[in-house]
Amino acid sequence: MTASPSSRVTIKDVAARAGVSKGAVSLAFNRKPGLSEATRDRIFAAARELGWEPNLTARSLSSSRVDVVGLAICRPARMLGLEPFYMEFVSGVESVLTEHSCSLLLRLVRTVEEEAGLLESWWRGRQIGGSILVDFRADDPRVAAAERLAMPVVAVGHPTLTGSLTSVWTDDATAVTEAVRYLAALGHRRIARVGGAAALGHTVMRTAAFDAAARTLGLAGAWQVATDYSGEAGARATRSMLTAAPADRPTAIVYDNDIMAVAGLAVAAEMGLGVPGDVSLLAWDDSQLCRLTHPTLSAMSHDVHGFGAEAARTLFGVITGSGPGSHPVPTPVLTPRGSTAPPRG
Amino acid sequence: MTASPSSRVTIKDVAARAGVSKGAVSLAFNRKPGLSEATRDRIFAAARELGWEPNLTARSLSSSRVDVVGLAICRPARMLGLEPFYMEFVSGVESVLTEHSCSLLLRLVRTVEEEAGLLESWWRGRQIGGSILVDFRADDPRVAAAERLAMPVVAVGHPTLTGSLTSVWTDDATAVTEAVRYLAALGHRRIARVGGAAALGHTVMRTAAFDAAARTLGLAGAWQVATDYSGEAGARATRSMLTAAPADRPTAIVYDNDIMAVAGLAVAAEMGLGVPGDVSLLAWDDSQLCRLTHPTLSAMSHDVHGFGAEAARTLFGVITGSGPGSHPVPTPVLTPRGSTAPPRG
Repeated sequence: MTASPSSRVTIKDVAARAGVSKGAVSLAFNRKPGLSEATRDRIFAAARELGWEPNLTARSLSSSRVDVVGLAICRPARMLGLEPFYMEFVSGVESVLTEHSCSLLLRLVRTVEEEAGLLESWWRGRQIGGSILVDFRADDPRVAAAERLAMPVVAVGHPTLTGSLTSVWTDDATAVTEAVRYLAALGHRRIARVGGAAALGHTVMRTAAFDAAARTLGLAGAWQVATDYSGEAGARATRSMLTAAPADRPTAIVYDNDIMAVAGLAVAAEMGLGVPGDVSLLAWDDSQLCRLTHPTLSAMSHDVHGFGAEAARTLFGVITGSGPGSHPVPTPVLTPRGSTAPPRG
Repeated sequence: MTASPSSRVTIKDVAARAGVSKGAVSLAFNRKPGLSEATRDRIFAAARELGWEPNLTARSLSSSRVDVVGLAICRPARMLGLEPFYMEFVSGVESVLTEHSCSLLLRLVRTVEEEAGLLESWWRGRQIGGSILVDFRADDPRVAAAERLAMPVVAVGHPTLTGSLTSVWTDDATAVTEAVRYLAALGHRRIARVGGAAALGHTVMRTAAFDAAARTLGLAGAWQVATDYSGEAGARATRSMLTAAPADRPTAIVYDNDIMAVAGLAVAAEMGLGVPGDVSLLAWDDSQLCRLTHPTLSAMSHDVHGFGAEAARTLFGVITGSGPGSHPVPTPVLTPRGSTAPPRG
């Protein structure tokens, strides 16, 4: 969406032009009773003349306290339990919701199209006061659905994926580049990456950033595979990389989460390869798992709990009338521990 | 909130404006099939224009279908993200809820007293059709609260803790006894246990069963400590046990979850002790973590996903009128892997 006039014109301007209170403008746009037909028409005319449209929050501004917000997750139920990311994210969301005596309505869906339908049903049925949207794809149908419903949402995803929606996001490209630079600075020339789900927008960005960084640094190999984020898939990918011919075998592997890096550590041990002596491993997200292994896992540290909390705080901001915006959270930072070192020889 | 226009506008007005019957309005707001998308939209538009909201009492009376069930968890938000158990349990609950197009209303609470109040508010506000109660204490106030409200609930806990409520539970005492017997059969005489939160009913039962089994088998040591289930606490407890004088040092340790066992494995490695050569480790719950370590972790395997699914199925049974009952799920079974062996020497 192009820059919206509403970022310059406010409800106050509309009220002044129509000669009414801000409350009257809100009543008119929420189609609530209490205004004469003539007043309503005058308000709509003033808004048209000024190019003003009610922002996404107009409806909830005028309604009662929000005590439920929604979160749909588009993953198989089994997967949800297997990855620390979502529970940490949900725990961060809950930490803010609790301060507002607000509950989280959680639902697993199979497709983002199903989620778009669910959002409409939740919203029309007055079950939620707003929703947190996660795991954006290219051309994600939830963007249009949330816009059409004029429903308060926060989109957890890069602004290039989330249209006009208020977004909270991490700079994945910069973090991937830092990871590759760090390993290259240690002397690694064959660096591989075990990535997440290929359909997700942020996986696409990380993959492109990894390729670009490898090219810039003139690295011999930039072997990348997509997985479903599970430890089993991480183990399979690691095994296939470490059994390659010596000339192709990576000396350092970056993972898109931490459970796959833990699995990679076990695969190296089962193959009799030392970490970091024979192969360096670098995890992502950095849940407590990374500090519970031996050696401890170097990681791109990302405060996932804080990410969830920021998403919830931003949603409450949208609900209470903040304009749309883009809220980057801190970029994951390199935390070197025991699993990365210069390559041998 | 001021008096709402909906106190004057009735379902009849909405039906008239939309040109449909009252029954059709009810169908739309209860999200029941039988209406075209266009009709449904017209009804929602009419309701919006009139500022009408469905009367919640009428709504639930007219709808036997439950579309939201509650789950409150009494743990600090930070802890929730750190332990695989809850996310696996929730994923099992969601797998059954999804079949019923039902969502989960999730809330973190600080105390079970707060939860008892929340249940009342959820139930009286018609926000949920029933609730799953977890983590029972002795004399748990939620038993009386659920009885008083005559609210459909399933209590996840041993029948001795859950009063007249329908319960779903695992036989923890039998599983602990099996774990101790197995380690003793391998030849261990000094067996320790790193337990969960001391306030929880099932921790009390496991502690008593562990002591009883050790006495029966005439074991020298039955060292038990309570923790908060975190990896950090598991590491601390393991370090303290493994630095004891040789005559006191356990040769086998049982953990109450898997993340603490993973942490114990790292502590042994950092101290230069071999697993299972110098010390055997036995995990609990057996999430995928146990198969991703090296050596792999022997565990008391418990299908936590299936446990959550059974709790949800039982709740739907209660909602549709099954009498109260007690539903044991399969007892955790010993799954020997690489981390347990006879003691050295």
